[in-house]
Amino acid sequence: MPAADTHMNAASPLTPEVPEVVVLRLPLYVRVLSQFAQQGMDVVSSEQLGEQLQMTPAQIRKDLSYFGRFGKQGRGYNVKHLSDELRRILGLDITWNAAIVGMGRLGRAVASYPGFEREQFRIVAAFDANPDLAGMRVGDVVVQPMNELGATVKAKNVRIGIVTVPAVMAQQVINELVAAGVKAVLNYAPYSPQAPADVKVRGIDPVLALQSMTYYLKR
Amino acid sequence: MPAADTHMNAASPLTPEVPEVVVLRLPLYVRVLSQFAQQGMDVVSSEQLGEQLQMTPAQIRKDLSYFGRFGKQGRGYNVKHLSDELRRILGLDITWNAAIVGMGRLGRAVASYPGFEREQFRIVAAFDANPDLAGMRVGDVVVQPMNELGATVKAKNVRIGIVTVPAVMAQQVINELVAAGVKAVLNYAPYSPQAPADVKVRGIDPVLALQSMTYYLKR
Repeated sequence: MPAADTHMNAASPLTPEVPEVVVLRLPLYVRVLSQFAQQGMDVVSSEQLGEQLQMTPAQIRKDLSYFGRFGKQGRGYNVKHLSDELRRILGLDITWNAAIVGMGRLGRAVASYPGFEREQFRIVAAFDANPDLAGMRVGDVVVQPMNELGATVKAKNVRIGIVTVPAVMAQQVINELVAAGVKAVLNYAPYSPQAPADVKVRGIDPVLALQSMTYYLKR
Repeated sequence: MPAADTHMNAASPLTPEVPEVVVLRLPLYVRVLSQFAQQGMDVVSSEQLGEQLQMTPAQIRKDLSYFGRFGKQGRGYNVKHLSDELRRILGLDITWNAAIVGMGRLGRAVASYPGFEREQFRIVAAFDANPDLAGMRVGDVVVQPMNELGATVKAKNVRIGIVTVPAVMAQQVINELVAAGVKAVLNYAPYSPQAPADVKVRGIDPVLALQSMTYYLKR
């Protein structure tokens, strides 16, 4: 059974390699399940999940099958159980420390966004290349100079870097975060950066999102 | 030749149906091409594009082949020509009008983001359900009450709605935009909305992006 052997050799002995496109959808499942819970629903079918997510019920069942058996045939999924399991699989049952680099207008707006803390992402450090900003308090943190980044990332167990610098600075800042050991970067800079294969980078870019819709508006 | 016939029956007689995942990548191509242009490069290979975008050269060539022949075998792509063509294909050679709904802290921050105007997205109207905010000037626009949304969308040729309301309000606001004829929605609310099949919705959500990285951090 070579397929099973391959799975056993993957990073985690219990879970087969999950396609990244499936991992990207898991947070959406969690969100939709929480919307269903708020509506007082205890059980949800793959049809209902599919309708909410613009997917077929078969796609939903296939996605979830990577992680085990969550529902009984014909009975649907228990909303709370499925949500708890997906949160655990995504690592959302613990708190993650993040550092923001770039404390201009965008960085300060991002630092004060209440959605991070609510979802267990805690901003524990902030950096800026402008020495005039060092010492400024933003939310719960005090802005530090860039030369303290490496030591602070290690001392404060920072696992996620949030990049809010101008486009021309983004690559260098990401290089410094990676050198400090950060493996996950949320990039707000309108720049498409390079990173090693073991580092995940997600871009937050409203212009790219708009540009992928005008294609359809033109038609 | 049934395949060719199918293509001829698609919405545009000249272009075969392009998978949405390819359309989503086109803005990234445009961005990376502009980065190459800034570095003074005139010609770029599919290998260089692939390295920058973490894709294989074959994937790059396949994506671009949906839109015609841009390069000569072994000679690479002309950076400026390819960028201009992709911008035209995406509809970025014209200016698009947008309206923001929700003029709280997030809405005001989004309204004043200079990246939209730079990329030919013009915010021409702003709305809020709170009557106290009506008449407030934000950037180039004056906040209007919600009951003026339908008429203003038509009068000002608004093609894109930007939703910056709280999660509990998002679905209703998107329904109102759709009823007014808007076919493209940029949704900043942390809510997964429903929309008709001919309406494109893109979410801008840093928490979802973070949640899709912790899966890997856990491992």
